[in-house]
Amino acid sequence: MGVVVNLEGAERKTRAAFDRIHSLVQEDLKAVNQVILDNLQSRAPLIPQLANHLIASGGKRLRPMLTLASAKLCGYEGLRHVGLAASVEFIHTATLLHDDVVDESDLRRGEASANALWGNESSVLVGDFLFARAFRLMVADGSLRVLAILSEAASTIAEGEVLQLSTANDPETSEASYLEVVQAKTAMLFAAACEVGAVLAERPQTEAEALRSYGLNLGTAFQLVDDVLDYSAHEQTLGKTIGDDFREGKITLPVVLAYRRGNAEERRFWQRTVEDLDQEAGDLERAIAIMRARDALGDSIKRARHYGAVARDALGIFPERPEKEALAGLIDFCIDRAY
Amino acid sequence: MGVVVNLEGAERKTRAAFDRIHSLVQEDLKAVNQVILDNLQSRAPLIPQLANHLIASGGKRLRPMLTLASAKLCGYEGLRHVGLAASVEFIHTATLLHDDVVDESDLRRGEASANALWGNESSVLVGDFLFARAFRLMVADGSLRVLAILSEAASTIAEGEVLQLSTANDPETSEASYLEVVQAKTAMLFAAACEVGAVLAERPQTEAEALRSYGLNLGTAFQLVDDVLDYSAHEQTLGKTIGDDFREGKITLPVVLAYRRGNAEERRFWQRTVEDLDQEAGDLERAIAIMRARDALGDSIKRARHYGAVARDALGIFPERPEKEALAGLIDFCIDRAY
Repeated sequence: MGVVVNLEGAERKTRAAFDRIHSLVQEDLKAVNQVILDNLQSRAPLIPQLANHLIASGGKRLRPMLTLASAKLCGYEGLRHVGLAASVEFIHTATLLHDDVVDESDLRRGEASANALWGNESSVLVGDFLFARAFRLMVADGSLRVLAILSEAASTIAEGEVLQLSTANDPETSEASYLEVVQAKTAMLFAAACEVGAVLAERPQTEAEALRSYGLNLGTAFQLVDDVLDYSAHEQTLGKTIGDDFREGKITLPVVLAYRRGNAEERRFWQRTVEDLDQEAGDLERAIAIMRARDALGDSIKRARHYGAVARDALGIFPERPEKEALAGLIDFCIDRAY
Repeated sequence: MGVVVNLEGAERKTRAAFDRIHSLVQEDLKAVNQVILDNLQSRAPLIPQLANHLIASGGKRLRPMLTLASAKLCGYEGLRHVGLAASVEFIHTATLLHDDVVDESDLRRGEASANALWGNESSVLVGDFLFARAFRLMVADGSLRVLAILSEAASTIAEGEVLQLSTANDPETSEASYLEVVQAKTAMLFAAACEVGAVLAERPQTEAEALRSYGLNLGTAFQLVDDVLDYSAHEQTLGKTIGDDFREGKITLPVVLAYRRGNAEERRFWQRTVEDLDQEAGDLERAIAIMRARDALGDSIKRARHYGAVARDALGIFPERPEKEALAGLIDFCIDRAY
């Protein structure tokens, strides 16, 4: 259950940023892992099998770390952040399982995806189980305010996923529509994970809002970079197949920018490849070449830096503490990984 | 949004039982329908489209009716039962959507199933949305006890669905294993839907337990009859294709009994058809003929009557009220429909 983050030599600085927050919440994270394992017990042996594949085999635990570090930043000294961090990870993992069904991707974190190994049926049902267990953990925690934050996030994530279906394969998707999907399906859970920390510590609304804003902007930057990595990372670094988004015709910011900045011939290329999904050998390489020529990858990273800067300022109201520095460092990690 | 229940002349008595409970909660049911419609609003137009297909196009609303009638039986006079009944229906509908992905069935309530029309992706994601909205409705209600009952039920349903995968296509499945799946995936939501009524009315634990037992046994009987109908109903009556379970190799009580009572040749037949899914023309007819010869259909109904009788006695502690009579009548409806 070690933390596996594949990074190359050049990323030593970002690796250090990740290590800093990780070592700050290390003990709590062990407790979170135990709660996760305990809650995967079931009469149906497939559940721990399949869920272990995803949960126990080395995700970064980014989202639960946010809950743990946010709670500590707010001076929380109890134990409730552990169960809620596990709940956040369950929601995230349920989403991954259902995403894999949807995306038919073959690799996830460098391993064969769950649905490739166990089939779509199992992924859907075990995802439902994790989602239900997430709620059971929140109910056991007993805070209606926390329940409201996390159930609202779960609802928005599902809405964002459906919204994404409607922009699928349409290269004319606007940057605004893309951003709406990113915030709903990724950033809202980051936001909720952070906000919960302030609520646990019973801090004033301004601090809850500051942490929420930090999470929302961090999550947006994280997803933007993720979408760039799908066209630029080494497979080892990314931990999943490069070009997945392209092959599915998924509309991410690099495509949105390249399409809008492209000439007529390039637009025909995008229409053929991501709209009609009529792809041939060399198309991915050509897509990347066009993106580079149109600055679509570099400018997507610039957009990510913008959200990163907003996230950093959101932390401004908090006193200097190791957790504040660690959360700020996480912004660098999210943006600079693999660069 | 009318209630469509397809019944033939001979079922007039059971139809009357359904009508009785329906007319008792009619006004509340209208309010439930409005809450459902309000909560299907979304930025993603696919959500109301797809969900309306299932929710607004005429299910029997059996589960929300249970919450409404149970609350009334306990003398509840507030309005909270309406939102919680909608929440119960959302959990049920989310399960249906995910079931359709799993089962690849083509007909649901006599209409093309949602996934046949919109694809598996949409069914998974809109199911997630409904599930999340169900929780949002419960959180808005604000009772942690109700949240515990319904989140436990949701967790058990998902577990039951996964459990069902492991018995799929195995004709040696025991009656006990079959029953475990039925209670988890169907009966638990009936139980929770009823128990919530007593909790809302702040009735003593004995009444909450009595309604829970009524629901659990009613739900078990309901599913047993459903599984028999898949081999015996007229398509118009059932509202879905006859023989679906057989074609998928789904192990239900009629198969369990027919296999255990069968001779060597019959067991080879079940192994070929439901285990190896090597089916040819005339196999469904032969399956039904064997079931009839081995009394597997009639005896499954007898088992259902047993659970129905337990459900009826569970109601015994309540005073004579129209709701008590209506809930008792619902047992007859569930068992005798299409007989």
